[in-house]
Amino acid sequence: MRLYIGLVHYPVYNKNFERIASAITTIDLHDIARLARTYEVRRFFVITPLDDQKLLAERIRRHWTEGYGARYNADRKEAFGLLCVVSTIEQATSAIAEIEEETPLLIATDASKQENGAVSYEMARNIIFGGRPVILIFGTGWGLDKAVITSADHVLEPISGRTSYNHLSVRSAVAIILDRLVGR
Amino acid sequence: MRLYIGLVHYPVYNKNFERIASAITTIDLHDIARLARTYEVRRFFVITPLDDQKLLAERIRRHWTEGYGARYNADRKEAFGLLCVVSTIEQATSAIAEIEEETPLLIATDASKQENGAVSYEMARNIIFGGRPVILIFGTGWGLDKAVITSADHVLEPISGRTSYNHLSVRSAVAIILDRLVGR
Repeated sequence: MRLYIGLVHYPVYNKNFERIASAITTIDLHDIARLARTYEVRRFFVITPLDDQKLLAERIRRHWTEGYGARYNADRKEAFGLLCVVSTIEQATSAIAEIEEETPLLIATDASKQENGAVSYEMARNIIFGGRPVILIFGTGWGLDKAVITSADHVLEPISGRTSYNHLSVRSAVAIILDRLVGR
Repeated sequence: MRLYIGLVHYPVYNKNFERIASAITTIDLHDIARLARTYEVRRFFVITPLDDQKLLAERIRRHWTEGYGARYNADRKEAFGLLCVVSTIEQATSAIAEIEEETPLLIATDASKQENGAVSYEMARNIIFGGRPVILIFGTGWGLDKAVITSADHVLEPISGRTSYNHLSVRSAVAIILDRLVGR
């Protein structure tokens, strides 16, 4: 398994389905870095083109990996060591290609049903354990831009709980999806 | 299935394993209320004996169920409609006993391995679908007080991801555990 994840802040939608760059939510970084560490993800890319937002994410990362946070909480240091701030999805895939010497497959996630079909959790599991590096991307705000979804190698079927309600936080979605795809 | 969940702020441990009442983290309420709604949980109890913390949780609940938040985001209103603030675990179980006309079984969760054995996810699933009302409780801070664990009807085995790292947020733990226990 050579799994990577990306948290996308652009291009995503806002409440009115306009394309925007969303702001970083610091708790996302804490929760998702720890999930990445728990589920043996190789790197957690925080993807935003906005300079001030990149600086913010970098400052948090440094606090927990080198600053006071690293001495205060060694477990958090381990998790934040996986975090890597980049400007675009392409930069994330290029970084993986360089590390792995192989272009990763990109699996997008979305809370809505896909018109052109989605891969099941079982299929996605087979892809992830099939040998190729894989990056799984998650949208913030009201979800990933349609253009990102259509250009992905695969789109994962949405999480269905026990009801038709599909308004989980991206933090909860990452938790459930990683556990379904690579949990023991 | 007659499932309830409780988020316990007392008695829990702090970093030095002293018994404390932890502060409410507002994002916990948002994430866990939405998880409860997704997984058909009947009520989400926020458990704290501190008056100011109960007021805070109540204010957030009212904002999203009756205030501006309810008009701004109807999905969040639905989720927060499940939230119920109580002082103690006993008050939560009494409220359930009154609603269900049957005392609930209490299943505690813990990130550590149990000396006296824990129930597996499969066993817990059978308990939940066995007909009796069940409350599943989660500790904030550094976890539930040992006395709560030992007096529970069952303790659920810890989440293991793919590594020995076991430092997920309680929000992530609720997401993974509900999906494992009652997800389709």
